[in-house]
Amino acid sequence: MMAWLDQVKWNSEGLVPVITQEASSGIVLMMAWMNSEALQNTVDERVAIYWSRSRARLWRKGETSGNTQKVKDISIDCDGDTLLLKVEQVGGIACHTGRHHCFFRRFEGGWSTVEPVLKDPNMLYD
Amino acid sequence: MMAWLDQVKWNSEGLVPVITQEASSGIVLMMAWMNSEALQNTVDERVAIYWSRSRARLWRKGETSGNTQKVKDISIDCDGDTLLLKVEQVGGIACHTGRHHCFFRRFEGGWSTVEPVLKDPNMLYD
Repeated sequence: MMAWLDQVKWNSEGLVPVITQEASSGIVLMMAWMNSEALQNTVDERVAIYWSRSRARLWRKGETSGNTQKVKDISIDCDGDTLLLKVEQVGGIACHTGRHHCFFRRFEGGWSTVEPVLKDPNMLYD
Repeated sequence: MMAWLDQVKWNSEGLVPVITQEASSGIVLMMAWMNSEALQNTVDERVAIYWSRSRARLWRKGETSGNTQKVKDISIDCDGDTLLLKVEQVGGIACHTGRHHCFFRRFEGGWSTVEPVLKDPNMLYD
């Protein structure tokens, strides 16, 4: 394994959490996971490629919808166990619910949905 | 358990990852974890209280340094398994290394430190 990949503190499943932020707006779009292959591919291709835990395979974000994420910057935290990606979100929709980002429920005594659906999610899942 | 707490998808250890973002700047300060008690206390007190996995106890951010995080907003993602906090970072230092935020190593072929230490970290650990 490359030295820089080996410096990442992968968890017991070989994964790290990845925070993905829109470079232009600063909006946190989503949180996902990568294994070392996903991170290597992301670096090589400069588009976000995650590890889908539910499907147990590499997940090229936007692979069906075309809503890919062009990677501008990758950072790692002090403990080496979390990554931060700054991306350009192609199509403006990061969430499989058809919203701009995934953190669309705000705590207001309970969880209130505060962001609109921009596109039919049946067209999107990826 | 309160209904809204029960709607959070706690992992097998009873935790969720928490992304903490500076409300004023949009900078992602850190990633940490909460259990249900930490989240309930955070909601009640409007300051960030995490679960420290290394110390296996509630961790009131800034408990020794005074660099607390005043919580302005709490959101949950589409899957209900990640939280996003928007905070005011008292003292301007979120990272135990004495830096403004924890994502101070950028990928440039390897991990390069690109943020200055603002305060002696020996004065800070919390």
